[in-house]
Amino acid sequence: MGTSGDLPDGFGPTIGTLGEDPLVAGVIERYPSAPWLTVGPGDDAAVLDLSGSRAGALIACTDTIVEGQDFRRDWSTARDIGIKVAAQNFADVAAMGGRPHTLLVSLTTPADVPASWAHELADGLAAECSRAGAVVAGGDVSAGTEIVIVGTALGSLATPSAVLRSGARPGDVVAVTPGSGRSAAGWALLRAGLVSSAFEGLLSEHRAPVPPYPAGVEAALAGATAMIDTSDGLVRDALRIATASSAVLGSSVVLDLDPGALAASDDLLRAASALGVDAAAAAEWVLTGGEDHCLLACFPSPAVVPAAFRVIGSVLAGDSGVGVRLGGKPFDGEGGFRHWS
Amino acid sequence: MGTSGDLPDGFGPTIGTLGEDPLVAGVIERYPSAPWLTVGPGDDAAVLDLSGSRAGALIACTDTIVEGQDFRRDWSTARDIGIKVAAQNFADVAAMGGRPHTLLVSLTTPADVPASWAHELADGLAAECSRAGAVVAGGDVSAGTEIVIVGTALGSLATPSAVLRSGARPGDVVAVTPGSGRSAAGWALLRAGLVSSAFEGLLSEHRAPVPPYPAGVEAALAGATAMIDTSDGLVRDALRIATASSAVLGSSVVLDLDPGALAASDDLLRAASALGVDAAAAAEWVLTGGEDHCLLACFPSPAVVPAAFRVIGSVLAGDSGVGVRLGGKPFDGEGGFRHWS
Repeated sequence: MGTSGDLPDGFGPTIGTLGEDPLVAGVIERYPSAPWLTVGPGDDAAVLDLSGSRAGALIACTDTIVEGQDFRRDWSTARDIGIKVAAQNFADVAAMGGRPHTLLVSLTTPADVPASWAHELADGLAAECSRAGAVVAGGDVSAGTEIVIVGTALGSLATPSAVLRSGARPGDVVAVTPGSGRSAAGWALLRAGLVSSAFEGLLSEHRAPVPPYPAGVEAALAGATAMIDTSDGLVRDALRIATASSAVLGSSVVLDLDPGALAASDDLLRAASALGVDAAAAAEWVLTGGEDHCLLACFPSPAVVPAAFRVIGSVLAGDSGVGVRLGGKPFDGEGGFRHWS
Repeated sequence: MGTSGDLPDGFGPTIGTLGEDPLVAGVIERYPSAPWLTVGPGDDAAVLDLSGSRAGALIACTDTIVEGQDFRRDWSTARDIGIKVAAQNFADVAAMGGRPHTLLVSLTTPADVPASWAHELADGLAAECSRAGAVVAGGDVSAGTEIVIVGTALGSLATPSAVLRSGARPGDVVAVTPGSGRSAAGWALLRAGLVSSAFEGLLSEHRAPVPPYPAGVEAALAGATAMIDTSDGLVRDALRIATASSAVLGSSVVLDLDPGALAASDDLLRAASALGVDAAAAAEWVLTGGEDHCLLACFPSPAVVPAAFRVIGSVLAGDSGVGVRLGGKPFDGEGGFRHWS
């Protein structure tokens, strides 16, 4: 004990003492490659040869997490945070009907963060890339006073056209993949200090979400008319589909959701009980909780909805006003996640 | 004066009071589109149809700037900062021998930043994209305590293979595009408060660099063996070429630079004089100043060096040790930019 051979966790060099180039080298060696990654991390830019079997239009998106706002180092491991950054980016690719294949990552961090934390972050990024069938193709590190991690995901479309937010039409059904509200419940448990193995599933889905990537491609192949990932809360994201679809259609489109299909699951109710809040709070998690990264989609007929989705409502021609109804009543999704609120 | 019709600058809503969706909408409307941008900003991800005339392997990279570290709002306009983010990303694409075509941008910012600042940032991003022949394809905004801006650039190769850092071979010549040291001089002037129109060129190149993008493709077409953009200082980046090339060759490669070809220009000497430092300081800017985003490349013969480059040395087989020599003496580029130093 105490010899250099078995240092306790967290005793390694800080990012500041390690220095930029060794930090980057240590991160890069954690990333698996792929045959189509002609030039991977370590040069000025990554080169992807997409002319082979991965042909199809390229998808690109970027998403950010900030310490204190989106994660806490005392609540999540660096590996969890790496998984989360990759997952929230790849969920956006899936929500277009695409297959993620590439991630780029920018890490801004204070000098006093242990280098091991950055390495574990890279491990989490690599793990989620592996689950998604993707690779980290590049990145950047910078100094700052708080940790900011930005992922940029690239992917390829599985169908000739992407599934936009704006294609919902009256007569469609509305469906979502399971798990809405679980991240919000996990966050509420963490905030209350209820870190019990009884709630491991909910805690884990807040720390390291598990988006159902293949469901995005399945939805596209099934003819989904509109799709979004529920990063900001189910109702708020449903409203985005309604707003975008209304704008394209030129008349009001309403997503009419069935409260019965959105009832809180048993473990959400158990979490509410442990937190001393009522069942309405659990229902609120389902409707407005953010960061679930479920896929919310509209389909032209109930018959084509893929098994990964569950029907939760229907699309109606509306009059005007709020584009989401819950049990027939307008609902604006107040409570969904907003930056700077 | 004082009426709502002619509010003074900076009197608009803050990002916090404006809110996320209107902020994003206001940013997006500033971005020009392109025929091959099938789905631009505003959906979960952007879709790029690269199967047409823009075929060729995809290039992707990411680069970050942080307030206080990389820019100051009292030294640079938001437009300047937008140009800088785009420029430093596109310079990395050019340094592979590629043509930039796409930028994604993440903005993390405190709530009290004026929304107009974010709009002007978008204007600068759009302007530099336009100069480079690229478009902004997506982005993200987040709350944080300091401003962090992350760009991710995509581009396509002009030649079958990218120009890496690792291809320099003994017998090559070393060449660079003009302007090394100008950003460092501009920064020194700003730090000293010498914001005079006499130094507008140097100040401007620090605030909003102008990388010579077409020179990257020209170098690739001319058969460049290695290339890098000088974001961290000429000598430090030359060292990266030497190190990477030595590793690939299996024996030591040295970039032998000619001090005479790297003499400080008249305006650098004038800036040094105004700052009360000697000519050696101006020479130091040329050798170790960061953020110039010149292209530093090696070519198999002086005869093929494109007109945008100037020969500054040659590649030698070394013994061991430091991979850059200046006038025959080892030089390790101390003073080049390092994060967390």
